[in-house]
Amino acid sequence: MKPMEIEKQSFAIIEKELTTQIPPQYKPIVKRVIHTTADFSYETNMVFSEGVVDKALEAIQKGTDIVTDTNMAGAGISHKMAERFGISLHCYMADEAVAKEAAAREITRAAVSVEKAAKQNPGCIMVVGNAPTALMKIRELSDKGIFTPSLVIGVPVGFVNVVEAKEEIIDSTLPYIVARGRKGGSNVAAAIVNALFYMAAEDDKEWRRC
Amino acid sequence: MKPMEIEKQSFAIIEKELTTQIPPQYKPIVKRVIHTTADFSYETNMVFSEGVVDKALEAIQKGTDIVTDTNMAGAGISHKMAERFGISLHCYMADEAVAKEAAAREITRAAVSVEKAAKQNPGCIMVVGNAPTALMKIRELSDKGIFTPSLVIGVPVGFVNVVEAKEEIIDSTLPYIVARGRKGGSNVAAAIVNALFYMAAEDDKEWRRC
Repeated sequence: MKPMEIEKQSFAIIEKELTTQIPPQYKPIVKRVIHTTADFSYETNMVFSEGVVDKALEAIQKGTDIVTDTNMAGAGISHKMAERFGISLHCYMADEAVAKEAAAREITRAAVSVEKAAKQNPGCIMVVGNAPTALMKIRELSDKGIFTPSLVIGVPVGFVNVVEAKEEIIDSTLPYIVARGRKGGSNVAAAIVNALFYMAAEDDKEWRRC
Repeated sequence: MKPMEIEKQSFAIIEKELTTQIPPQYKPIVKRVIHTTADFSYETNMVFSEGVVDKALEAIQKGTDIVTDTNMAGAGISHKMAERFGISLHCYMADEAVAKEAAAREITRAAVSVEKAAKQNPGCIMVVGNAPTALMKIRELSDKGIFTPSLVIGVPVGFVNVVEAKEEIIDSTLPYIVARGRKGGSNVAAAIVNALFYMAAEDDKEWRRC
């Protein structure tokens, strides 16, 4: 069986096993996350700000920069699709200057990376699969009116500060896609970006159908 | 809170919420996978071949090559720890020659990558977080006596051929760590490698304690 056939069959299985009604514009995103995790709890834990999918697709089609909080999320995002949209991927976590500044100020590298994104990629798509402090910094800079990302994908995984940091995004005026609760990860973050890519490319027609 | 404190607190929460008895030598691995996924079903779905942890630690301490089936798994593995052990990381999925050969023979790139690993890294640690066909090829080459990896980490995620491919590894004489069923992923694969790294470095003393 070819990869595309396996994917098609996998999505058919997921569709069949879904137990909740998911609005059509969210469905390809939720299904791709389940495809990436084999975890159907994403059916109910994913939350979307109003109109976020249209905003996200527009941002992608305009070639908006993407900033990730881990290299792993960056590695999982389809580079081929990013290229197709003229999107450049950035991750500042491994920058020496970021590490130095974080140590000096006693804050996380993830938080400093967000500040850097706010300066260098002001309207970017922020993809957070790991660091709750990145989400907290996004909220802080957004409240101050000095950072207005086109989209926040907030899906860090974890047991400490993660649930709360996600609620801070849900409770904001930012356009967001968040996996509520403890679950998420770099793989989930990348899956959401890729789902949006396919929707924006209209390769995936299903979301219009369903 | 500092990253190390967050990790410590996270592991304490996981320990507290575990509901099954996990043998001490497997516990740091299972816990790190749960830390990566916030998914406690790994408590019961992870299976280990007899003596695999000792074999894995020995392989790591000897600086055995690691071959991953995705760049994403490679990105999630601690490069710092790999360096410390003199371990080099390889992934052949993006090689043009691999893609060409896979197309010509109508098999997956993952299967061709395993053949390449069998030639270039005969006693390597095979890390499979994505491709069931990689596991099937490992089993095939192992049965033929032409590939004897030091360890197979078999945790592809998915809905088609994944469950079966994992059972082929469990049913083999290979040293393995497998997440039975549909669940897994590149993040899970990397977490297992990192857990073994910390055990091999004896940074993580807990597994001796518990």
